[in-house]
Amino acid sequence: MPNKKKYIVNGDSEIKAQIQFADQKQEFNKRPTKIGRRSLSRSISQSSTDSYSSAASYTDSSDDETSPRDKQQKNSKGSSDFCVKNIKQAEFGRREIEIAEQEMPALMALRKRAQGEKPLAGAKIVGCTHITAQTAVLMETLGALGAQCRWAACNIYSTLNEVAAALAESGFPVFAWKGESEDDFWWCIDRCVNVEGWQPNMILDDGGDLTHWIYKKYPNMFKKIKGIVEESVTGVHRLYQLSKAGKLCVPAMNVNDSVTKQKFDNLYCCRESILDGLKRTTDMMFGGKQVVVCGYGEVGKGCCAALKAMGSIVYVTEIDPICALQACMDGFRLVKLNEVIRQVDIVITCTGNKNVVTREHLDRMKNSCIVCNMGHSNTEIDVASLRTPELTWERVRSQVDHVIWPDGKRIVLLAEGRLLNLSCSTVPTFVLSITATTQALALIELYNAPEGRYKQDVYLLPKKMDEYVASLHLPTFDAHLTELTDEQAKYLGLNKNGPFKPNYYRY
Amino acid sequence: MPNKKKYIVNGDSEIKAQIQFADQKQEFNKRPTKIGRRSLSRSISQSSTDSYSSAASYTDSSDDETSPRDKQQKNSKGSSDFCVKNIKQAEFGRREIEIAEQEMPALMALRKRAQGEKPLAGAKIVGCTHITAQTAVLMETLGALGAQCRWAACNIYSTLNEVAAALAESGFPVFAWKGESEDDFWWCIDRCVNVEGWQPNMILDDGGDLTHWIYKKYPNMFKKIKGIVEESVTGVHRLYQLSKAGKLCVPAMNVNDSVTKQKFDNLYCCRESILDGLKRTTDMMFGGKQVVVCGYGEVGKGCCAALKAMGSIVYVTEIDPICALQACMDGFRLVKLNEVIRQVDIVITCTGNKNVVTREHLDRMKNSCIVCNMGHSNTEIDVASLRTPELTWERVRSQVDHVIWPDGKRIVLLAEGRLLNLSCSTVPTFVLSITATTQALALIELYNAPEGRYKQDVYLLPKKMDEYVASLHLPTFDAHLTELTDEQAKYLGLNKNGPFKPNYYRY
Amino acid sequence: MPNKKKYIVNGDSEIKAQIQFADQKQEFNKRPTKIGRRSLSRSISQSSTDSYSSAASYTDSSDDETSPRDKQQKNSKGSSDFCVKNIKQAEFGRREIEIAEQEMPALMALRKRAQGEKPLAGAKIVGCTHITAQTAVLMETLGALGAQCRWAACNIYSTLNEVAAALAESGFPVFAWKGESEDDFWWCIDRCVNVEGWQPNMILDDGGDLTHWIYKKYPNMFKKIKGIVEESVTGVHRLYQLSKAGKLCVPAMNVNDSVTKQKFDNLYCCRESILDGLKRTTDMMFGGKQVVVCGYGEVGKGCCAALKAMGSIVYVTEIDPICALQACMDGFRLVKLNEVIRQVDIVITCTGNKNVVTREHLDRMKNSCIVCNMGHSNTEIDVASLRTPELTWERVRSQVDHVIWPDGKRIVLLAEGRLLNLSCSTVPTFVLSITATTQALALIELYNAPEGRYKQDVYLLPKKMDEYVASLHLPTFDAHLTELTDEQAKYLGLNKNGPFKPNYYRY
Amino acid sequence: MPNKKKYIVNGDSEIKAQIQFADQKQEFNKRPTKIGRRSLSRSISQSSTDSYSSAASYTDSSDDETSPRDKQQKNSKGSSDFCVKNIKQAEFGRREIEIAEQEMPALMALRKRAQGEKPLAGAKIVGCTHITAQTAVLMETLGALGAQCRWAACNIYSTLNEVAAALAESGFPVFAWKGESEDDFWWCIDRCVNVEGWQPNMILDDGGDLTHWIYKKYPNMFKKIKGIVEESVTGVHRLYQLSKAGKLCVPAMNVNDSVTKQKFDNLYCCRESILDGLKRTTDMMFGGKQVVVCGYGEVGKGCCAALKAMGSIVYVTEIDPICALQACMDGFRLVKLNEVIRQVDIVITCTGNKNVVTREHLDRMKNSCIVCNMGHSNTEIDVASLRTPELTWERVRSQVDHVIWPDGKRIVLLAEGRLLNLSCSTVPTFVLSITATTQALALIELYNAPEGRYKQDVYLLPKKMDEYVASLHLPTFDAHLTELTDEQAKYLGLNKNGPFKPNYYRY
Repeated sequence: MPNKKKYIVNGDSEIKAQIQFADQKQEFNKRPTKIGRRSLSRSISQSSTDSYSSAASYTDSSDDETSPRDKQQKNSKGSSDFCVKNIKQAEFGRREIEIAEQEMPALMALRKRAQGEKPLAGAKIVGCTHITAQTAVLMETLGALGAQCRWAACNIYSTLNEVAAALAESGFPVFAWKGESEDDFWWCIDRCVNVEGWQPNMILDDGGDLTHWIYKKYPNMFKKIKGIVEESVTGVHRLYQLSKAGKLCVPAMNVNDSVTKQKFDNLYCCRESILDGLKRTTDMMFGGKQVVVCGYGEVGKGCCAALKAMGSIVYVTEIDPICALQACMDGFRLVKLNEVIRQVDIVITCTGNKNVVTREHLDRMKNSCIVCNMGHSNTEIDVASLRTPELTWERVRSQVDHVIWPDGKRIVLLAEGRLLNLSCSTVPTFVLSITATTQALALIELYNAPEGRYKQDVYLLPKKMDEYVASLHLPTFDAHLTELTDEQAKYLGLNKNGPFKPNYYRY
Repeated sequence: MPNKKKYIVNGDSEIKAQIQFADQKQEFNKRPTKIGRRSLSRSISQSSTDSYSSAASYTDSSDDETSPRDKQQKNSKGSSDFCVKNIKQAEFGRREIEIAEQEMPALMALRKRAQGEKPLAGAKIVGCTHITAQTAVLMETLGALGAQCRWAACNIYSTLNEVAAALAESGFPVFAWKGESEDDFWWCIDRCVNVEGWQPNMILDDGGDLTHWIYKKYPNMFKKIKGIVEESVTGVHRLYQLSKAGKLCVPAMNVNDSVTKQKFDNLYCCRESILDGLKRTTDMMFGGKQVVVCGYGEVGKGCCAALKAMGSIVYVTEIDPICALQACMDGFRLVKLNEVIRQVDIVITCTGNKNVVTREHLDRMKNSCIVCNMGHSNTEIDVASLRTPELTWERVRSQVDHVIWPDGKRIVLLAEGRLLNLSCSTVPTFVLSITATTQALALIELYNAPEGRYKQDVYLLPKKMDEYVASLHLPTFDAHLTELTDEQAKYLGLNKNGPFKPNYYRY
Repeated sequence: MPNKKKYIVNGDSEIKAQIQFADQKQEFNKRPTKIGRRSLSRSISQSSTDSYSSAASYTDSSDDETSPRDKQQKNSKGSSDFCVKNIKQAEFGRREIEIAEQEMPALMALRKRAQGEKPLAGAKIVGCTHITAQTAVLMETLGALGAQCRWAACNIYSTLNEVAAALAESGFPVFAWKGESEDDFWWCIDRCVNVEGWQPNMILDDGGDLTHWIYKKYPNMFKKIKGIVEESVTGVHRLYQLSKAGKLCVPAMNVNDSVTKQKFDNLYCCRESILDGLKRTTDMMFGGKQVVVCGYGEVGKGCCAALKAMGSIVYVTEIDPICALQACMDGFRLVKLNEVIRQVDIVITCTGNKNVVTREHLDRMKNSCIVCNMGHSNTEIDVASLRTPELTWERVRSQVDHVIWPDGKRIVLLAEGRLLNLSCSTVPTFVLSITATTQALALIELYNAPEGRYKQDVYLLPKKMDEYVASLHLPTFDAHLTELTDEQAKYLGLNKNGPFKPNYYRY
Repeated sequence: MPNKKKYIVNGDSEIKAQIQFADQKQEFNKRPTKIGRRSLSRSISQSSTDSYSSAASYTDSSDDETSPRDKQQKNSKGSSDFCVKNIKQAEFGRREIEIAEQEMPALMALRKRAQGEKPLAGAKIVGCTHITAQTAVLMETLGALGAQCRWAACNIYSTLNEVAAALAESGFPVFAWKGESEDDFWWCIDRCVNVEGWQPNMILDDGGDLTHWIYKKYPNMFKKIKGIVEESVTGVHRLYQLSKAGKLCVPAMNVNDSVTKQKFDNLYCCRESILDGLKRTTDMMFGGKQVVVCGYGEVGKGCCAALKAMGSIVYVTEIDPICALQACMDGFRLVKLNEVIRQVDIVITCTGNKNVVTREHLDRMKNSCIVCNMGHSNTEIDVASLRTPELTWERVRSQVDHVIWPDGKRIVLLAEGRLLNLSCSTVPTFVLSITATTQALALIELYNAPEGRYKQDVYLLPKKMDEYVASLHLPTFDAHLTELTDEQAKYLGLNKNGPFKPNYYRY
């Protein structure tokens, strides 16, 4: 029998792996999403193992129940300064890393340039990010640039065990496995930081947990730390609050808001993943379907463009009159959700807001209407309102629920209202390459900056570096940049090597 | 370890389930594909169970090894006039049928209209098609219209066992299961036809095997048969050859070439499935990629439009100057494959031709180039030329092989050169609805046609019926057709109810 | 003061230059438009001189009032076998012809190939078409291929006098000028046909007037005539009627319905000219505008695609359910005109039907709504219903009228409901090149066809010739066609040189 | 004979109506274009009278040779405090203003709201802008809001005389006519400023000439002036330089860089005008043409999107790697100009740079290649290099020159390298409406700002006002904005009325 269940309690919890300190929760609840949307790369490995990536599948059979913390493992060189699920999986992981290397040309180019100079010589980097093949390419690049690294996972589910094994085998002190407990999580971070005879001088963080831990447990460590690089919306928000409160004691680089990263994480990536996510979950046909997209920011723009191109009829809702006018000029009817809710076949939220789709809206949708979320958090659709006794939930596929009204009407809810593209599609390596390159350059910049260039504040990546990240990815497309002549550079008042635009330029 | 193998022999065989008589093979080899491309619906259930559809997955555990032919089974009404894998799976199958009904509004509308009249009263239809939920909706519609039906599968792998069970439980004599042997295949067909006290007067065929069997074994049966409805390219080709040879002894309806079916099977469906197939297999990003599409027929047009919309740079090859000029006007560079083969990231064949991509082309492709086939048969890419000792094959995912050259270059070959959209994506029910409705109307037309309207020849579906199929699908889109006024109809010299176009109209 | 007028009587007449015999009018009125839409090239020179082409403008000053029939003119070689406005304009005309040659590569290629063989050697062609630079390129090509030509104009307004002069100067007996009277019109035709010692053996007609004249006055001439080539909808319709009545006494070639010509005259040309026509007349912005397009044939498809691409929101009306389903799949809401008439900013008719936009619709449109016609004839919008005393007409620009309701509401009517693209934009030479090449090839085919290939009937251009026309235009786009290998041709059962598709192929 | 000329000297001068002080020229030459591109509205009336707008054409016949400065004119109320070409043209001008009002709903809405309060009561505004119907709507709106206005033209050619007359007739002291001399130009400005018993307290400038004049002649006037609103790139640049030099003595508002204005002046407007400009000048077909667009800023993005949609094959050149990566992701091959210059049919510059297309490029272009400029200034194409004796220029239409090489090759140069969209197409009123509304709101803001809000510096329009301008234009599209609930506003940390985005948001 299909899996019928009434009132599912908290099917949500497995995705909310971000662990926050109680004392910080309040302020995050107050205003968590203003800056933009959460980094796509956040739960990547998780989603890919959930659903379609083959990467991790062949290792599931090797599962055993012993906690990695209780195991004695050594790599082939005899080191045991790591803690991973199973060091024997290293070969599989190495293979994944090699494949990723092929699609991360920018980092490979950085490695090549570093053969002469070692811009990170002397750098001792402690990192806390998702541990995936792409991260491994980043870490090994940092190594090639001269840095020493110690690493933990920023998410208790997202570690690819084989990749962690491969890194440990190569001599990286990695402390991470898939399925950590909360206690494991902090234990791993502590093992990265609290080590005799080694003290970090750079932090690479994704979510702010590592930074927080050092603040709390080892505040003196900051004396030697030259800077923090943070890539998540949440982590950046924490840093701005520290700065505002006068408590930020080293320079920090916000790499989340660089142009290149923003465009790829949002516009370009969502343009493709909305189609992918819908197809994989529902096998629906896009042509002729009526769709309403809530929100016309970068994510909404990407979704609308893709669906329009596939022959859907797209309506848009917006609160911001400027984005609304853009939607009009791009050929979308701007409506209130109420005006079209009875007629649409698909509802997609991309707002970063909460309760954009309410129970009232859900009650009025037509039979078979598909509802999903491409926005920031899982609050955009009021899924909680559907967990009531009069409605029946039926899980028809992985990530697909039919919610059935007493009169037989079914709503097709995807990923229980969590992010569709993280839950039901995968993130191309190319997008992660841009993020990783941005992180590497930010570390180099902060580590090498002359005294005084950066104060105890949060900085955006210098535009020139943003441009450099972009330039490193052009060869992928066999794209040939034009160079200014001296005369032209003078005419424009620009340096021939950039930056080419004022900071307020909108791209 | 990843699954490495040298020189895979005949990894192709499992898909070639189409069984042909030895004495016919020659002529098919001579000219198999001229008319168009094979019906999409052919291997649907197969592909969907292969890969992503949840439909069949919950029954795999109930497998047992006894042949259905050796089992004694009865449905709840005591009948045993059927042969399916396991009658107990009926409930699961019913559920699938109900879901399909929601997306096949045209057939449901036909049922409703049939409540008064029974246009198929007295019809005894023997059918041989894929047995899927959508076919079940068709069969139950035929029943509601007054027909008696007996059914076998046209493909030894494509039967959804649960659906077959549900049909048997409802009283349909169905003889089919997934994984028939060749002997089983003909046994099932024979059980449909060779039954005491019941003789078919209509044939619904998909591939021509049923028709062939009756020709060979029970030629006298044709005396009572009013007509044949055939939907596949191959079956239609067989019929035209019979007709040409003067051996066709009843009218036959070619439903493969109706406008609506052609556009949906090819242009509209491929526009979506090319993206879907590529994403599910490779997780690649489309933006900025260079793609060459071989062939600019309906399938090629769909592929090109979709990839262009997603930001790929698309080149086209063509042999036909008219299609070539269309490609130019639609904004694609028309090239010879040789001109771009070194630079492209993806090669897609949509020609119906053979050896369009040769070993020489494959040798010149760049590292990581993706090669796949959206065309008619599995001959478009010369895959056989890759099964040589110097090349290493690595299966990296289901349907994805890396073929590795001695210098380390990898080509990413999808579905071993078979049809990408059948192997790696699914076909929307909406497309199948159009096919099934066309079949039902063709049966009604042939069964009710006054003596003399159809002779012993192969006919296209009358345009008016083609238009009717289309009209039955408009409500899905809440689309409102305009009616001609009397004055306008007179002005145009048209009947207000159609047909609205001359036969040569190109749409 | 702006030009205000109440109730304009017959502002239409200047465009209706097509002269028909009274005895034929009735049947044309009955069913004029079924086959397709009128050839674009029909009124080209007229429209181009009307509005924006610079071509003819520099000669307007040389106007004099003497009728060309009363003038004595000789060309530089002493011949006076022609009748044009002013032989001294020949140099201007030659210049126009040279410019046109640059954009008619296919005819130039034909000339080159003809240097050896003369496929029209011995042909005596009498022609009646628009006399434009493009026609001149055609005529001189026919001459280069070996033919003798005599020519008249098919439209009393469309002759470019300078071009006619240039042709006369080069020795072509041309009888045509801009602004002929009806009597002049038939006099010119007669002068082409009725000449001592010369009798035509081929007819090239556009509209059927020349053919009609010979039928009526010189029926015996048909004994020597090998065939008729006709390019207009109207002329083709006349031929089919003659054929049906058993009165067609020579083979005729319908070049109007060849694939290449149809696609260019309709889909590709209208995709561009709808934007051009609207901009030149109204300077409106397309982005965000709501548009309803009546009819989703080739013309409608072109209009919809263009406007959607420019950011308009497009609704479609249709009577044919197949075209309607195409509109849905292409992403357009299918509505009845009534449903959207109050809200749209633009109404465009592309139906070939009459009274598609009625006075009732016009009454309900909102202020400033733009109404125009891209379809076949000037009957689609019921313009006559607007010529009533309570409405005020205001001519605000050439081809643009404001029709003002008593309450002040203004409707912007373009070209008084005549064809927008003929009246308010120009037709690219490239489109005319395709038509002219088709005509030349049809003449060659009919002239050289072995006895018996063509009977006394109306034929479509053989597909192979259609393909040849296309192939001659590919070099314009630097497009490279792929050739079949012998093995492939055998596999497909095709000749390597085409034809490549069955006749019913829809492209 | 066509107008042949060798070496045209300074065909450029008539467009360079911007008059600059000698002492400022140097710095402008040094770095004139960094900020963006010149305001579109600058030369609108000029271009529209040049070519296709009917607006002014009916008055050309009334030209007389007397200088307006020498005439004695009075309006119907007896005032002579104005100087226009001919006060009798007022009725024509009023009609133009009424038509413009229909398409400037935002200003009309402002007027309505002002019926109660008069936010500009007491304001004495001196303005120097183009004098067009749209400006008249702005001026009359300012009047309705309570302001007194005096106005001069910012361009010696751009005044619509009828509109100026209508304004004078309505009591606005306007000093402007088409075809002023340089002396007239400054005389008119002086007459606006230097008037007994009236002293301006607000400046609305377009180009900075008015501001400069007051600085130079009446510096004391600044004591009473509350602020300057400036809309041109050039004028804004001057203000930033004054500010940098510490010489700016009042607050100034840079309205050029507001989001709404930028998007409409560049992306949305150019998306349409590139097609319009090319069609009106060349009647070319876009389908299949190869085009290279130099620069992928907002203007380039608009051009590329439009041409791609029309079936052109588009290449892009860029100097900025971020924009380059955007071009790649949007589906354009990124090349150096040299790589494609031999093969393209059209070259379009959109860079703001100089000598982007050099003589060397021009030498290598193929025959019939079209060259035009959509960028900032007339320096992008090195037109000067074409004015050499070995090349022949032929003017084939207004704004279209053939430049002919000794071997017969012709290049089609549009508008002599000046801005195509200003020279050869028109700017929709809707775009001008956005600019005018922005100006009005900036005046209101500066005039009413509490002491201390603005210092002696250059400000961007507050985001909230930018959003307000957008919101006033939504009704044009029948667009319905969604309002935040209290709960949502709190969640997002936003005011329900905006601003909705941080200042660095890129849209």
